Amino acid sequence: MAASSKVMKQKVAILGAAGYTGSELVRLLLRHPFVEIKHLSGTERTAGWSYGQVYPQFSFGSVITLDGERAATPVDALPPLCMTDDIDFSQVDTVFCCLPHATTQTIVSRILHRGTQHTPRVIDLSADFRLADVETYKHWYGTSHLAPELQTEAVYGLTEFERKAVRSARLVANPGCYPTGAQLALAPLVRAQLIALDDIIIDAKSGVTGAGRAAKEGNLFCEVTEGLHAYAVASHRHAPEIEQGLSRAAGMGNQGVIVNFTPHLIPMSRGILETIYIRCRPNVKVEDLRSCLEEAYREEAFVHVLKDPKQIPQTRHVRGSNHVVMNVFADRLSERAILVVVL
Amino acid sequence: MAASSKVMKQKVAILGAAGYTGSELVRLLLRHPFVEIKHLSGTERTAGWSYGQVYPQFSFGSVITLDGERAATPVDALPPLCMTDDIDFSQVDTVFCCLPHATTQTIVSRILHRGTQHTPRVIDLSADFRLADVETYKHWYGTSHLAPELQTEAVYGLTEFERKAVRSARLVANPGCYPTGAQLALAPLVRAQLIALDDIIIDAKSGVTGAGRAAKEGNLFCEVTEGLHAYAVASHRHAPEIEQGLSRAAGMGNQGVIVNFTPHLIPMSRGILETIYIRCRPNVKVEDLRSCLEEAYREEAFVHVLKDPKQIPQTRHVRGSNHVVMNVFADRLSERAILVVVL
Amino acid sequence: MAASSKVMKQKVAILGAAGYTGSELVRLLLRHPFVEIKHLSGTERTAGWSYGQVYPQFSFGSVITLDGERAATPVDALPPLCMTDDIDFSQVDTVFCCLPHATTQTIVSRILHRGTQHTPRVIDLSADFRLADVETYKHWYGTSHLAPELQTEAVYGLTEFERKAVRSARLVANPGCYPTGAQLALAPLVRAQLIALDDIIIDAKSGVTGAGRAAKEGNLFCEVTEGLHAYAVASHRHAPEIEQGLSRAAGMGNQGVIVNFTPHLIPMSRGILETIYIRCRPNVKVEDLRSCLEEAYREEAFVHVLKDPKQIPQTRHVRGSNHVVMNVFADRLSERAILVVVL
Amino acid sequence: MAASSKVMKQKVAILGAAGYTGSELVRLLLRHPFVEIKHLSGTERTAGWSYGQVYPQFSFGSVITLDGERAATPVDALPPLCMTDDIDFSQVDTVFCCLPHATTQTIVSRILHRGTQHTPRVIDLSADFRLADVETYKHWYGTSHLAPELQTEAVYGLTEFERKAVRSARLVANPGCYPTGAQLALAPLVRAQLIALDDIIIDAKSGVTGAGRAAKEGNLFCEVTEGLHAYAVASHRHAPEIEQGLSRAAGMGNQGVIVNFTPHLIPMSRGILETIYIRCRPNVKVEDLRSCLEEAYREEAFVHVLKDPKQIPQTRHVRGSNHVVMNVFADRLSERAILVVVL
Repeated sequence: MAASSKVMKQKVAILGAAGYTGSELVRLLLRHPFVEIKHLSGTERTAGWSYGQVYPQFSFGSVITLDGERAATPVDALPPLCMTDDIDFSQVDTVFCCLPHATTQTIVSRILHRGTQHTPRVIDLSADFRLADVETYKHWYGTSHLAPELQTEAVYGLTEFERKAVRSARLVANPGCYPTGAQLALAPLVRAQLIALDDIIIDAKSGVTGAGRAAKEGNLFCEVTEGLHAYAVASHRHAPEIEQGLSRAAGMGNQGVIVNFTPHLIPMSRGILETIYIRCRPNVKVEDLRSCLEEAYREEAFVHVLKDPKQIPQTRHVRGSNHVVMNVFADRLSERAILVVVL
Repeated sequence: MAASSKVMKQKVAILGAAGYTGSELVRLLLRHPFVEIKHLSGTERTAGWSYGQVYPQFSFGSVITLDGERAATPVDALPPLCMTDDIDFSQVDTVFCCLPHATTQTIVSRILHRGTQHTPRVIDLSADFRLADVETYKHWYGTSHLAPELQTEAVYGLTEFERKAVRSARLVANPGCYPTGAQLALAPLVRAQLIALDDIIIDAKSGVTGAGRAAKEGNLFCEVTEGLHAYAVASHRHAPEIEQGLSRAAGMGNQGVIVNFTPHLIPMSRGILETIYIRCRPNVKVEDLRSCLEEAYREEAFVHVLKDPKQIPQTRHVRGSNHVVMNVFADRLSERAILVVVL
Repeated sequence: MAASSKVMKQKVAILGAAGYTGSELVRLLLRHPFVEIKHLSGTERTAGWSYGQVYPQFSFGSVITLDGERAATPVDALPPLCMTDDIDFSQVDTVFCCLPHATTQTIVSRILHRGTQHTPRVIDLSADFRLADVETYKHWYGTSHLAPELQTEAVYGLTEFERKAVRSARLVANPGCYPTGAQLALAPLVRAQLIALDDIIIDAKSGVTGAGRAAKEGNLFCEVTEGLHAYAVASHRHAPEIEQGLSRAAGMGNQGVIVNFTPHLIPMSRGILETIYIRCRPNVKVEDLRSCLEEAYREEAFVHVLKDPKQIPQTRHVRGSNHVVMNVFADRLSERAILVVVL
Repeated sequence: MAASSKVMKQKVAILGAAGYTGSELVRLLLRHPFVEIKHLSGTERTAGWSYGQVYPQFSFGSVITLDGERAATPVDALPPLCMTDDIDFSQVDTVFCCLPHATTQTIVSRILHRGTQHTPRVIDLSADFRLADVETYKHWYGTSHLAPELQTEAVYGLTEFERKAVRSARLVANPGCYPTGAQLALAPLVRAQLIALDDIIIDAKSGVTGAGRAAKEGNLFCEVTEGLHAYAVASHRHAPEIEQGLSRAAGMGNQGVIVNFTPHLIPMSRGILETIYIRCRPNVKVEDLRSCLEEAYREEAFVHVLKDPKQIPQTRHVRGSNHVVMNVFADRLSERAILVVVL
């Protein structure tokens, strides 16, 4: 890899940089040799702040750039937070949106509809462009889609599945956390027609950062520690997202498969584990499922099927990384199998 | 309730009092107006210790007796730890065994086979007498049952189901933690023939005290905190216990029903939540399941079906108590339902 | 203790019952044989709610009354939340105030200035009446004292020191958490003139419930877990409270002693540990300090000096109880000693 | 920075690689462009294991090499664990020892006393070579120093103070965790004669990884979570280490200064915060202390004095990094000040 100074760096803007998702992006992008973070947008409350005021850890050089150049402190390499409206997007190559759901469609519209001007690529980390069908979106999110014409060109950003489309898309909808794990574990099996499509149960567990940095009583330390509960039972918005991915894998278009998706809040800050219960099609054995997954991810750097059939994935083993680890287990119920996936 | 001084108190011995189970028992029994703890047995290492040396919190009066009499400190009301062999069981009314699995059968045999002498009632908190079928026991625990003749008289101690038998039994096998929640939630539905018996999936989550106080690397703070993992997938010993209870509820004897039981270790010290996925029999609705459970537990003080069909049980709400709370939810998969039970 | 039905129960009102302090009070008072909770006041948001809606654990009988009578569930024994203004205080024997600082003075004024009508005793758990000197109050809390005439009759409620006065007072100001531990550990030594008064350093550590249930970003699970920090360095409002208590113990009136008080927030929900560094007066040894404390608390049921001079107090050993445990250690610096106190 | 392939990489061996210290070293060194990890030694139990068996997270590429070359997985870049005796040290450039205290002196002797053969540099992370005076070592560790002649050449590895000596030393004794923070905060003030030397109180708090991975009851999740306690009061082995550093800073040789050092165990896995109470010399103000520290660390990349005099260091802000952050605060006690340092 050539030294970065010889390569043109992508000028990047991160909108909604003050949330947890934003901080993770900043952490990762600061280390990227081809990226230069030119804009960080916050809220009215944080506009003008240095990033070190929002996240003091960035004041202390906990980030090391990959190209050998080290900022005196990361904060020195970062612009202060601004308002989204103040950004000149014609000078930006890529925009990462980490804005609250339902605000993104409007803002992305504004960014991408710029007539003849240069428009950046947009990678949206909210849920606003994940569902291809605008009626499904309306049903689950309670409001009409505010940029349906953009939805048609949006690409669902599960890279392992849509590598080519993601590369060339102008608008990429980054998958949700739970759906990433669930689809990576299930889609190859669906595609290969190894499992029943009407009997998929996803019992999901997640740390609390997934809930964001908003000051809500339910996310207070004292409300979370030493406790555990399910939430959004049979009503979580990641269900349609997972179903869209599996329906596509089944060749059904955007709908068709219905899954059970039950998330639980775990007293830890980060990590996701999904225990997925599936029923094999006739004559399909656990070894077939395993081979299918191993084959699907043979070339993938970030998705791993454990070699030891007895080893159980732990969230601690992928903590802070972008790796996904899974394994397959035979179930005591005949014809059923259990997938465990962590990220 | 009359003052305790007028009532003859039960003389109680707790074997294996130094573990977490033992400490919970001591905490509860110290408050019982009709109980006098006469013997606490420990290991060779702890023999002779005061209980305050094992659990300093008992030195400070954190326990309040129900009959109005308060010990200067609980430790003053407790005997020092002794060796099991030193106890004269002919002077004891009730023995609670919290010994490691596989040692209990031998010791209970010795206690209960005393010829003409008075023998105490024995309440065993280990798994040694929970399985009625000794072959099943051997299959799951890897050793032959060492007291098969006692097994025939042992009563599985799920009080809500076996109240009469528990009252009169000489030997009661206290249920395991996970099986308690699972059976309370499922048995009424099985009995009423409302759910399929070949499609029960129990995704269980537990705090760490369930693993005991043994110094094992996997239970170290640094190995547990901020992480989560499944364990004993399709191989946990609570499965046969749950299956026995459900088979009996189905009128099948001790075997017949097979369940999926997948436990997970959660970074908290106590609490259990079980998310149970079931398939309704034809024409059975979620409301039928709800009515069945409400009816089953209408008179029970310790088992509650939440009135609000939307309220999700949380382990924090029953923390430190002996209450079990559950609720029923419709599943997005047709004909399926989700039970959530916490203890 | 006679059965409660023969004794007239105190009619109690708890104002601000929806916070953590309120929930602890409810938990404790539900178990008291001589107390009947007649009123629970909340905020506009929670007015009309049952207590089980604020704290679901109260729906499940986790509370056992000391007189043998058990409510079907605690919630059945509790009134729904009301507004403070709706309470007829002439029918109340004792009022517990758990209201935010600065609102209490006004409300307590209203309750106690009722002309010829019966007025209840008021026990205030806020800081509004803890400081005897209204100028000190104004300096530290930033607002003028709104009920100075009541301040003159208010009694600082550290029972171990002011037992008689507390019993007969109409208005009792309950001490803060940190000041309770610090004064219990230090006041006897000050009174006996064993330690220097110009060199007291209190390094305090507390769990998060002390911060209350308000939804603030700093108290979110993700902001607290796996981290630790000092706060309000040299500026915490408990300092004047501690100094008042120690000045009184030194016979100086309400001021005179100045202490260093540095609190830290610990990632746990409850518990306080204070490590106090003191300098002995000439010829005073650690054993003298120990004897002094043992003598001071010989008759006290809730304050304990550890017998083993090597045993170090742990917050876990007094968790959930009203006991305070302390010990004294020699310091490597000559003439200094270290006190460790937990509650 | 040139691509690593053009530079000769240091061949490194890590002894005792299976503990937490070892895993941190491996994590850091895997990313270093000039280091090639050639040997990892474990115990008899772990000999032969791949590093991924000890720490599964290393199987998944959570480490990125700085020179652009990425191992397929870190485990591919690491040798399997071996026994220390099997390593040919003549082929090694640098040895990192993370062995238990008291075993290191013998092993390091063996490594460095090799006659005419090439001997590697040794960086010892245990406490075995930190104390210059062998009598002090014997007093605190209870055993005689087993390599006194090596002790005379060992350099105490606090780089900020001993940069030159560390570079040229054959044997470097890496400082303990607590002493690093304490000395960085105090030594410049001692050197500049700004503070009293007989009144230094260090109240230290640490996460649990500092206790190591040994399976001890006191480090179990259930024994640690939701609790806090002091330990080794006035008897912790880091005290002589801190005193040695401050005595040197005072120009007194290896002894002379005595400090109070009181550590506490906090329920989190990593992080250290030390609250240090000091007394200023006459006419010295807090601003003088601040200037002195800022000056001392102006050129240091890893030590930071917070610019905002009100900002309080938090362990979360330096978590996982090698940065140390501190701040100085005026104390309410006249002439005293408070330092807070986190790492």
